[in-house]
Amino acid sequence: VDASGLRVDLLAATSADAVIVTAAHQYPLGGVLPADRRAALVAWAEARNSLVVEDDYDAEFRYDRAPIGTLQGLAPAHVAYAGSASKILAPGLRLGWLIAPPQLVEPLAAAKVSADMGSAALDQLAFADVLERGELDRHLRRMRSIYRRRRDALLSALAEHLPTLRPTGASAGLHVVAWLPAGLDEDRVVSNASAAGIGISGLRPRRIAPGPSGLVFGYGGIREDAIRPAVRRLAEVLRSAA
Amino acid sequence: VDASGLRVDLLAATSADAVIVTAAHQYPLGGVLPADRRAALVAWAEARNSLVVEDDYDAEFRYDRAPIGTLQGLAPAHVAYAGSASKILAPGLRLGWLIAPPQLVEPLAAAKVSADMGSAALDQLAFADVLERGELDRHLRRMRSIYRRRRDALLSALAEHLPTLRPTGASAGLHVVAWLPAGLDEDRVVSNASAAGIGISGLRPRRIAPGPSGLVFGYGGIREDAIRPAVRRLAEVLRSAA
Repeated sequence: VDASGLRVDLLAATSADAVIVTAAHQYPLGGVLPADRRAALVAWAEARNSLVVEDDYDAEFRYDRAPIGTLQGLAPAHVAYAGSASKILAPGLRLGWLIAPPQLVEPLAAAKVSADMGSAALDQLAFADVLERGELDRHLRRMRSIYRRRRDALLSALAEHLPTLRPTGASAGLHVVAWLPAGLDEDRVVSNASAAGIGISGLRPRRIAPGPSGLVFGYGGIREDAIRPAVRRLAEVLRSAA
Repeated sequence: VDASGLRVDLLAATSADAVIVTAAHQYPLGGVLPADRRAALVAWAEARNSLVVEDDYDAEFRYDRAPIGTLQGLAPAHVAYAGSASKILAPGLRLGWLIAPPQLVEPLAAAKVSADMGSAALDQLAFADVLERGELDRHLRRMRSIYRRRRDALLSALAEHLPTLRPTGASAGLHVVAWLPAGLDEDRVVSNASAAGIGISGLRPRRIAPGPSGLVFGYGGIREDAIRPAVRRLAEVLRSAA
């Protein structure tokens, strides 16, 4: 991946017969897959007769424009769309949904029964009720503005207190990745931050190959007014780690 | 298995390094593993350093005496005990629990996270609350007498209307197995019953090797007063299938 998401041009050189993509908001770097890469990805899937799994984990939270269309809508025969209640309501619900190519629907249903006999019934019924009554849309509208304010507070605090970090990614989701300046060791920063009471993680656990250092700032579970003090404290940690 | 449950004497001739057992109430035949087989099973597990998985799926429902002790209590280092909310509350909860030998606890927790990131949080919290307030015990006492009356109604109706069927198994659980008389084809009986609006299943789908024909009567989800009419109707089905 690069700053725009999946490097679709590299797929042809692989023997992959399936690819998982976070097209609306690449996790964790935050790129939005551009139209030309979407078209190329669909063309690759059609030419190879292969499967694209579109993990649409947080597309409901886009702050600068309307959410982008799905890949699944472009190529329903080759894309399995996966959505989740984890980011829009709560991870503890353990609910998600799939829109799969028709020939995969029955095998997927059988695999689900075989794996766990289906998800918890009460949670599914409660979620369906919340959906039907339009409460989920209301909740999303409410949360979109709350998360946006948290994101703005985070970016503003980073610009003021940690100007050497370079935030990246679209204005979306529940996290920001910021590149660390050269010379700062990611693991050391994360562990020093943790010792100072700041829960933050690095890019390394999310990598399959080495690359530049960066921090992942999640704002899904922190109060807006706690963000600036935490960034200030993190700036002190970085100064002492430098 | 035989009418007393697992044929522990045959284990030594196998290369099995683990065995799953429904010791309190063998599923589906309903045998209760006798004390000498329990001792032999524990001795086998200790000698082989192997694992016994005790699937205690319905031991809370014993109607003629107090529930029998667990195998896990006899040999905690070699038995992983599995309990479930499926029979005592509702299968739709998708909740269960394990008491595992200490060295398996961490690998099991890691496997659970890897499989599904954990069970639904709200259901776990609600279940813990029901447990803590003693509501589960009250529920079990209430259901024990309801299920017992259903079982009695079923056995009495079978004795009257289908005296050639031979019920087997301990006075326990949410089902009765009854052997079919020779000459009646299990699959045919099941499909004719289904066509007559009677949901019943046979032993064949639960077998790993051929054996005598039998029917599995579940009374967990049927009203007491619906049992006798259903058995009467089943008797007509059997007469026409004979």
